Amino acid sequence: MIITGVDYYPEQWDRSMWEDDIRRMSDLGIRTVRIGEFAWCRLEPEEGQFEFGWLDDAIELIERYGMKVILGTPTNCPPLWMFQNYPDTLQCDRDGTRTKTGIRGHRCMNSPTFRKYAGRIVALMAERYADNGIYAWQIDNELESNHCTCEYCAASFRKWLQDKYGTLDHLNRAWGNVVWSGEVSDWNQINAFMTAAVNRADWFNPGYMLDYERFCAASTTDYVHFQCDIIRKYIPSAVITTNSCFGSNLPDFHQEFEPLDVASYDNYPPAVIPANPEKFYSNAFALDFVRGFKQKNFWVLEQLGGPMGCWSPITPQLEPGMLEGYAMQAVAHGADLLSFFRWRTASTGAEMFCYGLLDHDNQPNSRTEELKHLIHRLELVPNLSETSLTSKVAMLYSADQEFSFKTQAQSEGFAYWTQMRLFHEACMNLGVNIDIIPQSHSYEDYEVVIVPTQFVTDKDSVKRLEQFAQQGGTVIVTNRSGVKDEHGNCIINESLPTLFRKMCGCYINGTDAIGPRYQRIRSLHGGVFSITSWCDMLVCETAEPMAVYLDRFYAGTPALSVNQFGKGTVYYVGTVGEKALYRSLLLEVFHQRKMNVIENLPDGVESTVRSAEDMQFRFFFNNTLEGKSFFAEGKRVSMQALEMKVLTRSGQWI
Amino acid sequence: MIITGVDYYPEQWDRSMWEDDIRRMSDLGIRTVRIGEFAWCRLEPEEGQFEFGWLDDAIELIERYGMKVILGTPTNCPPLWMFQNYPDTLQCDRDGTRTKTGIRGHRCMNSPTFRKYAGRIVALMAERYADNGIYAWQIDNELESNHCTCEYCAASFRKWLQDKYGTLDHLNRAWGNVVWSGEVSDWNQINAFMTAAVNRADWFNPGYMLDYERFCAASTTDYVHFQCDIIRKYIPSAVITTNSCFGSNLPDFHQEFEPLDVASYDNYPPAVIPANPEKFYSNAFALDFVRGFKQKNFWVLEQLGGPMGCWSPITPQLEPGMLEGYAMQAVAHGADLLSFFRWRTASTGAEMFCYGLLDHDNQPNSRTEELKHLIHRLELVPNLSETSLTSKVAMLYSADQEFSFKTQAQSEGFAYWTQMRLFHEACMNLGVNIDIIPQSHSYEDYEVVIVPTQFVTDKDSVKRLEQFAQQGGTVIVTNRSGVKDEHGNCIINESLPTLFRKMCGCYINGTDAIGPRYQRIRSLHGGVFSITSWCDMLVCETAEPMAVYLDRFYAGTPALSVNQFGKGTVYYVGTVGEKALYRSLLLEVFHQRKMNVIENLPDGVESTVRSAEDMQFRFFFNNTLEGKSFFAEGKRVSMQALEMKVLTRSGQWI
Amino acid sequence: MIITGVDYYPEQWDRSMWEDDIRRMSDLGIRTVRIGEFAWCRLEPEEGQFEFGWLDDAIELIERYGMKVILGTPTNCPPLWMFQNYPDTLQCDRDGTRTKTGIRGHRCMNSPTFRKYAGRIVALMAERYADNGIYAWQIDNELESNHCTCEYCAASFRKWLQDKYGTLDHLNRAWGNVVWSGEVSDWNQINAFMTAAVNRADWFNPGYMLDYERFCAASTTDYVHFQCDIIRKYIPSAVITTNSCFGSNLPDFHQEFEPLDVASYDNYPPAVIPANPEKFYSNAFALDFVRGFKQKNFWVLEQLGGPMGCWSPITPQLEPGMLEGYAMQAVAHGADLLSFFRWRTASTGAEMFCYGLLDHDNQPNSRTEELKHLIHRLELVPNLSETSLTSKVAMLYSADQEFSFKTQAQSEGFAYWTQMRLFHEACMNLGVNIDIIPQSHSYEDYEVVIVPTQFVTDKDSVKRLEQFAQQGGTVIVTNRSGVKDEHGNCIINESLPTLFRKMCGCYINGTDAIGPRYQRIRSLHGGVFSITSWCDMLVCETAEPMAVYLDRFYAGTPALSVNQFGKGTVYYVGTVGEKALYRSLLLEVFHQRKMNVIENLPDGVESTVRSAEDMQFRFFFNNTLEGKSFFAEGKRVSMQALEMKVLTRSGQWI
Repeated sequence: MIITGVDYYPEQWDRSMWEDDIRRMSDLGIRTVRIGEFAWCRLEPEEGQFEFGWLDDAIELIERYGMKVILGTPTNCPPLWMFQNYPDTLQCDRDGTRTKTGIRGHRCMNSPTFRKYAGRIVALMAERYADNGIYAWQIDNELESNHCTCEYCAASFRKWLQDKYGTLDHLNRAWGNVVWSGEVSDWNQINAFMTAAVNRADWFNPGYMLDYERFCAASTTDYVHFQCDIIRKYIPSAVITTNSCFGSNLPDFHQEFEPLDVASYDNYPPAVIPANPEKFYSNAFALDFVRGFKQKNFWVLEQLGGPMGCWSPITPQLEPGMLEGYAMQAVAHGADLLSFFRWRTASTGAEMFCYGLLDHDNQPNSRTEELKHLIHRLELVPNLSETSLTSKVAMLYSADQEFSFKTQAQSEGFAYWTQMRLFHEACMNLGVNIDIIPQSHSYEDYEVVIVPTQFVTDKDSVKRLEQFAQQGGTVIVTNRSGVKDEHGNCIINESLPTLFRKMCGCYINGTDAIGPRYQRIRSLHGGVFSITSWCDMLVCETAEPMAVYLDRFYAGTPALSVNQFGKGTVYYVGTVGEKALYRSLLLEVFHQRKMNVIENLPDGVESTVRSAEDMQFRFFFNNTLEGKSFFAEGKRVSMQALEMKVLTRSGQWI
Repeated sequence: MIITGVDYYPEQWDRSMWEDDIRRMSDLGIRTVRIGEFAWCRLEPEEGQFEFGWLDDAIELIERYGMKVILGTPTNCPPLWMFQNYPDTLQCDRDGTRTKTGIRGHRCMNSPTFRKYAGRIVALMAERYADNGIYAWQIDNELESNHCTCEYCAASFRKWLQDKYGTLDHLNRAWGNVVWSGEVSDWNQINAFMTAAVNRADWFNPGYMLDYERFCAASTTDYVHFQCDIIRKYIPSAVITTNSCFGSNLPDFHQEFEPLDVASYDNYPPAVIPANPEKFYSNAFALDFVRGFKQKNFWVLEQLGGPMGCWSPITPQLEPGMLEGYAMQAVAHGADLLSFFRWRTASTGAEMFCYGLLDHDNQPNSRTEELKHLIHRLELVPNLSETSLTSKVAMLYSADQEFSFKTQAQSEGFAYWTQMRLFHEACMNLGVNIDIIPQSHSYEDYEVVIVPTQFVTDKDSVKRLEQFAQQGGTVIVTNRSGVKDEHGNCIINESLPTLFRKMCGCYINGTDAIGPRYQRIRSLHGGVFSITSWCDMLVCETAEPMAVYLDRFYAGTPALSVNQFGKGTVYYVGTVGEKALYRSLLLEVFHQRKMNVIENLPDGVESTVRSAEDMQFRFFFNNTLEGKSFFAEGKRVSMQALEMKVLTRSGQWI
Repeated sequence: MIITGVDYYPEQWDRSMWEDDIRRMSDLGIRTVRIGEFAWCRLEPEEGQFEFGWLDDAIELIERYGMKVILGTPTNCPPLWMFQNYPDTLQCDRDGTRTKTGIRGHRCMNSPTFRKYAGRIVALMAERYADNGIYAWQIDNELESNHCTCEYCAASFRKWLQDKYGTLDHLNRAWGNVVWSGEVSDWNQINAFMTAAVNRADWFNPGYMLDYERFCAASTTDYVHFQCDIIRKYIPSAVITTNSCFGSNLPDFHQEFEPLDVASYDNYPPAVIPANPEKFYSNAFALDFVRGFKQKNFWVLEQLGGPMGCWSPITPQLEPGMLEGYAMQAVAHGADLLSFFRWRTASTGAEMFCYGLLDHDNQPNSRTEELKHLIHRLELVPNLSETSLTSKVAMLYSADQEFSFKTQAQSEGFAYWTQMRLFHEACMNLGVNIDIIPQSHSYEDYEVVIVPTQFVTDKDSVKRLEQFAQQGGTVIVTNRSGVKDEHGNCIINESLPTLFRKMCGCYINGTDAIGPRYQRIRSLHGGVFSITSWCDMLVCETAEPMAVYLDRFYAGTPALSVNQFGKGTVYYVGTVGEKALYRSLLLEVFHQRKMNVIENLPDGVESTVRSAEDMQFRFFFNNTLEGKSFFAEGKRVSMQALEMKVLTRSGQWI
């Protein structure tokens, strides 16, 4: 069965409230309780003085009420005595100074001193609760890439570079350091990335920035290994995960989750849906992205339970149906466990207006009613958890693209994610499952592979795509692909899309970074579409043009093309369009491949399928604030705002 | 008589200009000259070397021309030798580093070294001018809450906390430090509030932030006591004040003014009146707020004398009538002394485009003409200064609300001041005097008590309000009341408005932080009003609904309610409306209480009454750029833009 | 012949590419190659270890293909070993800390250590290439005013002040330090300008700020002398320049270029032309400004060769004709050499998306086609380089105005450049050459002298203007003139425009800083014009009003005036108008002086003349994206978007 849980912080509440809380969770049908991930100061109130009794009691109580514990390691927030006694455990900021205490997530994951104390507390917990039936372990909390500028990190970065490049000569050539006389003549000239003023990453060498991002991500991965190894030493069979989130410094998720058993995510879809549908991206993208971390079903360790606040003004109240709808949306994309954040809204601390299920009044409310309804509904389909998403379409992700694109804006308002989301949303609106997988992963079993914005290019990856296409696969390549080599330097002496030219059957003899401006293209298969951000001017070699620009000096020039390559087909999308363009393109692709699509889903309605050998559940989610009505699977479907409907193979609605 | 004065800086001008300046002041009818508050470097040009001769001469000259001196202590700006010799006298910034010299107000009020030198110069001045007929003393200049992060301040803060909480255990529980493992195990782990980047106060524990704000405010209060004590040692009868202003770090004004004899204010109403009346708040609010510091008439030590500049681009020129109108507005709210900033615009230094009465050309101009007219007018009513404002309506203010609300945005664009101003402005437009008094003050003699945004709640305060209502008073409570306890933690296990629920006769079972969006309510007494910022969904118990929401999933739910409570009435306002809502609500309240109102004042026209046993002056101020015409007190009143008209009891217009 | 060159960085490319690159340059008709200005780390890879061989080879190769070398001194970017070994060579930021390495232009020009190493490398280059036929030397790169806060700079500033003022008493009086007790009692109390937060220059003493800006500019000038002296020691006949650019910290260009032989500029006109013509200023202003540095023809050392990027998102692609049109525009304003930035777009380093002529694909493209066309066209008029611009109109510039105006915003959105550009653009649209010359320069040979925004005033300058007018010249003075004395203090006891009052025949008895608001004036000679930013209310004495305000309380008051002064005429422009106002005013002036104008140039079309005794070239440039058609010089002229047409005296179009 899909498991429904809650996040709970027993240490934050008077003991007299514990049993009532836990009984009410159990009564609601809650199955897991996530605890512990911020409790270090209660577990080790002074250096080397440990107090596990309260945690023993909390776990015992939860289990007594028939629920299981997901236990977090408390390393995101060391106690203040650590920062006081060992300042080197504290991260340094972009300007090189130690950050201030009083916040969270401010420990340096690389610090040997921090590792010593973190290792000890994790070991003690693993040892103590090895036989306790802990359902799963969560490492730390919302790990970001370890962007710290301390001396230890700088030294580690230099070591990482020495291992990679061997000699300064290799490094200087790889980064093209000669520009602006930046050649390194002594390893100690290399520092962690620091700036005098914010937002100046664009002044720095992109080769250096790319390796620095890789190093920071590798630090986080190493830190995950470090904790996993400790836990597994005591509990070889432990199920270990960590709750990912998408901040400004992304780790390399595929590396990071390699040692972990299951991918997890903190799922906070937007409480406010923009009026302009072009401005809205479904959170389905994030869910499929997370499912791709380990290419299997995943967990949500924090699921939206109320209005958000604290880091910004409080958001509006959840719309009716939103709590349940967004939870079901996660399930529709492969979530097998949903732990709601959080049982009751904090009454103290910085997050006191980041609402949980219960308000401060501790009374049942419309959100707990929705949760009850959700749990009831999931109980109707206990075998849903035995299903998963099977996709014929894959989209390739690589952390390098994100690392490289974010420091070099290709045009105003244009991000690596822009095109990924557009393709993804079109699949959703056509009812077609899509996997987002690491670029290095095999995709031989897919029919269609979408590779948007292959900014940083590697030859092996291109060769594999060529093979895939030659053997009959469909590949979709976009603008800003083939731009850079693996060191983040621009590929020279070859026309764009360089390594992709052969398979695309076209090259580019002019580009236009139009940024936030809007222009138009006309599809040769019908339709005029709005475009923005970027325009490649294509010269079709073996390819056929699919659409041409309608404006300015390159009106009439191809913007999209299609190329027969071996037994397969390769599309090149030279611009960035409105949502309808991607829907139109993918519809053509899927028709050609005779894939099953649902053509008439209204805007804002998305559909996926979870299935197993002997069963199938088709999900329809109306991610808008209006009612929607349409025909699908031979039936008329009417949906309320934010409603999720699930259709079984036998035609039953759940 | 209402006294008209000017601010003058003799040390900034060649001696040859002094007598001409002072004679012209005297000729205009000026009665007081405020001097001295930035002159330390001329009084003590080198450490321990004092030169009072020039100040003796200036005072003598002013007095010779029949005027009185208001003497400022020069402690806002120590001489540069102090910062050079004793760097610990310089404030530290948010990032923990010493601020840079070259600005003003940058001394640390807590620094013992600074106190030593400040104490000496103040003592020397008090001793020297004890018998000089100084009209009043101004302490320092525009005192803000002492937000300094130096080591001494940090230590003082820890001491303040030790005195308050005794043990770390008490402190940890009071602040709820367990969240994010922030429990303090050694007092030295506590620092002054520092951030690595600006605007990040919302990452910090609100309990810590609230006490830190209280401590910073207490530091300023202590500093005021320190200077008062010195002056009174030499001049027991001295009249002492300080010129308040409203910056980003407000002190606790009621505490701060406790040792002082009279409240003062630097009154700079807006030179530009927004086109949209909803965007405009009358400066009358600030004036009534200042009158509340000591609940009696007050002084203006800096009154708008010309266009503002320097801290921002120069503002447009004052509209004709604005100088006089705004000055009379201050009088209408209880000002008994108006010292215009400043005699002549500075020709050097950072403020050289912050205009005084005279431009650099030193010629009479339209503003000095208006001043002459003002003085003449005030001379017609010499007994005006014997009157004061008597109010039947009180609004409660508490620094805690400001301290707590400002670090935790309840919704985008929503401030503690928002609702205070809306209620105040409605009173003004109904011609009803209103006092803004400290929450701790007695209000038994009022008929109506408005308590907007009682975010931080204390039990005694609520009990007193209940008693007041039970004995027949009218109380108005708003949304975001009863949210927090005295430590800044959210009150749990009680429905909002928690402690206020009983008197309001309703509770809240849902909230919606709509931020800058607009929705609507319908008053059950007639009228539809635009609302914004916040929506409480009310459940009326003993109360009657007064208005209901018209939009979204809570359409039909009560938004405002009224409750009979003992002999009195308690209103609850669950949302934030347009100005007309408050006018409508208060009109109903005042009618019910059979209070005297002026119902037909046009938008932007405000009215107050100053009175004494045997006299009464009703003020009408047209705070707009259009002429206005209306009936009031049985007369047709026509007013020009920015005009103030005053009606005596005998029906005479002044 | 006008010389066409390219910027090239041989050290950034594999040697195998050099000869192909250089041959292709030569084939295109390129005459000069600028190299070397960022190559220090390759010339001195370790301290004291020099490697000139590769540069010898590059120079030899360029010369072998018949081209000349412009050689840059590489001092903008010292190698990293210097910053590592001698941290005092690194600039300090506004907050007083050392800036971070990894950027460019971050050496402190004043640092003695830096001077030692910079001096050595420059000397070695000058000695080595003394006999190599180097066409010209470029000192450093895009020199800005040396805004560094290091201790050495602070000490140098104090020394500079001691030399200027002698005693602290003089300095304290000059700066008016008594304001805010800022009097200096020890030279060491004076520091370089540092702030705790950004954008706070307006808190500091304007006298201090003005001298600090002068000092920073003088540091840059001194640095130019330092390098010139070294080069000239080895090559007395060297042609030396530096490539100016307009950043946020402008040097004093006229001082800076005094020791140099020719003025140079990095010319990057806007790739995107705003839709609203009032928002667009032609880059012609910058070109005329640079020609004024030495009052003779100049060079462009970096001419726009492709879309810009890196410091900001990539700009749109150059419009067809833009590369050639902007290059010809530079020629039309006196450029005799155009070195395009850059041969091929960098493939590594921070500027890899700041496009050169060739894209990364290294293929001929539309931009190289335009360049070929340009070179061909310039070859048709080999004697064009023997011509220059002769002007009857001069506009006075002084660095003091820029230094003083930028720290004290006179109204929102109003800059020193605002009025300079408006007058300049009107001349261009009337086909009238205009020189922008230093305020101290003689202008006896001109007919019309425009002196906008003479904010900082000096008596000699005003006397010279009076003489010029009295002897028959026309002078145009604007608002914000006569405001300040040479120390940056406001002039007192005189009505504005103070020193200019006599020649203008009017004074100001009121001002209004209307900022971004719009009002209107009516010209008494016909026409209503939109105005903004500032309004002076004029009282005409001997002058005649030319236009009056139409709005608000000063409607009917004169806004512009004209005064007969001796044999000449002086105009006073009391407000800031739309472009048409300046066109109208100057048309009247030029008619009166019977000067030759081209009355019917459409909006956005500009015209200048280059001539010599026996020849004349009239340039027409259509700086818009639409075709334009008009009559000029008796001919119908039709121009495409961004087209430049050149008419010889004999009526031939080139």
